[in-house]
Formats: sequence, C-alpha cells, structure tokens
Amino acid sequence: MHDRRADATASPIARLIEAFHRLPGIGPKSAQRLAYHVLRAPEEEARTLAAALIEVKERVRLCERCFNVSHQSPCSICLDPSRDRTVICVVEEPLDVLAIERTRGYGGLFHVLHGVISPADGVGPEDVKIAELLARLRDVDTEVHEVIVATNPNLEGEATAMYLARLLQPLGVRVTRLARGLPAGADLEYADDLTLGRAIEFRQEVR
Amino acid sequence: MHDRRADATASPIARLIEAFHRLPGIGPKSAQRLAYHVLRAPEEEARTLAAALIEVKERVRLCERCFNVSHQSPCSICLDPSRDRTVICVVEEPLDVLAIERTRGYGGLFHVLHGVISPADGVGPEDVKIAELLARLRDVDTEVHEVIVATNPNLEGEATAMYLARLLQPLGVRVTRLARGLPAGADLEYADDLTLGRAIEFRQEVR
Repeated sequence: MHDRRADATASPIARLIEAFHRLPGIGPKSAQRLAYHVLRAPEEEARTLAAALIEVKERVRLCERCFNVSHQSPCSICLDPSRDRTVICVVEEPLDVLAIERTRGYGGLFHVLHGVISPADGVGPEDVKIAELLARLRDVDTEVHEVIVATNPNLEGEATAMYLARLLQPLGVRVTRLARGLPAGADLEYADDLTLGRAIEFRQEVR
Repeated sequence: MHDRRADATASPIARLIEAFHRLPGIGPKSAQRLAYHVLRAPEEEARTLAAALIEVKERVRLCERCFNVSHQSPCSICLDPSRDRTVICVVEEPLDVLAIERTRGYGGLFHVLHGVISPADGVGPEDVKIAELLARLRDVDTEVHEVIVATNPNLEGEATAMYLARLLQPLGVRVTRLARGLPAGADLEYADDLTLGRAIEFRQEVR
C-alpha cells in the first residue's frame, strides 16, 4: 500500500516535528503540537528560538574555574566581587547551580562536577571534575574554608560526598552537606521510611 | 539586594530557556532542562532544529484547495491521483488531517476550516474556510458526492456540523459525520453519560 502518511507530513513540517521529537521529554504528539504552534506563531518567535539555539552552541562554554556553563570564562559568579570566596558549593550539574541560586540563600562560589562517582556505571573520580576542585583548594591564593557537598541525596550522591569528605578534610577544609529531613509541606503519615528516619536522626534544635 | 539569579543564567542560556518557555506546554523547568540538553547535545542537533524552524516559516504555506499546511500548493494530498475525489473530509485544524491519515482508513480529500463556528467567541461562518468549501463543491469539475464533517464532538463542533449539513445538502451532497460511541478499550462502567447515551442512540448492527 502507498504510504499516505508520508505525503501528509510533507518535508519541512515533518522535519520540524522530528527535530522537536528528538528533545528529551517531547513525545510524538507534543512534537506535532509544537511544530503546528510554530507554523501559526509570528515568524519572529521561530527566528528567536533558532538564533538562541545557534548562539548557545557557539558562545556557551565551561567556566575554567567552577566548570559551570557560561558565555564567559571565568563566569560571572566566579568574577562577582560580592560573592563569599570562603565557601564552595559542589554540585553535580549546571542545573543544580540554578536551583541553589533561586533560593537566594547562598552567596558563595560553586564547583560543578559534571556527574557523580558511580562504579556501577563505570564512572570513577577521574571522570568528574574532582581533580579540578582539589586544584582550586590547593591554590596558594585560596580563601576557601568550607566545601558544601550538594550532590543528590541518593546512593551515588552520598558516596561522592563521602569520597570528597575523606579527600578534602586532610586539607583542613570543613566539609558539610545539605540537611536531610522532611520536605516543606510534607505529610508525616506519607513520608517514606528513609526520609522520616533521617528526619529523626538529624533532628534539629527548636530555636 | 543584588540579583544573583540574573548572573547565574547569563545571557545566551537565559535567552534559550526563555525561547523554549514561550512554546505552549513548556513550563520554566522543562525549558531549563531542554536548554541544558541542547548545551550537552552535539552541535548538529541544535543546528538541525534551528534550520527546521526557519524552513517551516519560510517554505510552509496553505494549500490553495484544501487549506492544509504544506510546502507546496496544491498540496501532495490534493495532487495525489490515487486519492478518492468523490469525498471530502472537513476538519478543524491541520493536526486533525494528520490524525485521520494515521488511521490509514481514509483515502479521500480534505478541507481544513481553520476553526469552528463559535458565536460565544465571536467566530462566525465567514471567519472559517466555509465559503472556500462551498466554492469547491460548486466547481463545475467537482466529483464530490459526500462530505464527512469531522469536527470535534463538542458544542461548537456539532453546531458547525449542523450548519454545514443545512448548507451542503441542498447542493445534492451527502453530509455525514464521524460515528459517536464508546472509545476503543473503554470500560462501560466508567463511560460518561453523554458518551454512553450516544452509544445507545447510535447503536450499530452486529455483522
């Protein structure tokens, strides 16, 4: 039988649907809806997205100090004179920097590992930016007193935190990690055992 | 207080996040994830999406006969000699053409209204491609015997179907609409009253 579908989705639209579909979390139906939205939207909107895509690939690189993504190196956080240079927050991915910045509760520097140690996946300490973190702390000009390990609270994140603690404490650096406990708005009755167990273990003084 | 967030999301990435966020159904978190995916993905992938966006705006237009979107006019469906020229399926949007083509159960022509009659929203018959449909049916060369009205089974879709039936039947054209009934895989117990009511009203002969 003659494939009518190929006719209906004739080339340029089909190519756009396919390009959207290749993005993570965009299924075939969403890709269709996005493509038809672009068709109806002002040309300016499509051009803006296209230009932003190209610009990101051409101008964004990793900061030579903290390895966060930025259009300049060192990045604006590393260069910002108002940031506290005595503390470095170590995160897994650039998106984690954004998440922590959103809280507006942290004013220090960052270090992006670009992964976590995960022997099961064949990722060792040399595959993430740990040597680079060590170099920052060993720098003669360093003012860093504390490293907050903000890896994810799962097996690999915890193991990476332990590894970093053993590695950095001998340098005389205080190593801390994000508090474990009940999330805001949680219902005790529905909290999972591990979370509730940690909330009891790491119970905090009422002040 | 100094806005640290603006620093962290420095320009090109922030612009890409914003451009993704402007698409329908893409929230701020999804836009971030998509932008960071693009950062990590091969440059080729970003360039392909950018090129597809531009190409769609530059090359896609409406078919002068059926008003479906296409890179050529008349579109490939209207030109396809293997399609049945005695029947036109009238749909609301170009995406509906794709949905019907996917069923592979229809081999006739299409007509895209680009909307439905909706007095509540100030959309009258003159705001959708009804005059253009009438012109196709009045054409001396027309072979059309049947118009399948495939508008959505809601208030506006039904009203538009009724309007078209009154308009087209005097031309000697058979006007049909998509069957109402239980969807495939439905559970009778959970079917809504309207659907179940229609399934009874339009009960079909067991053959």
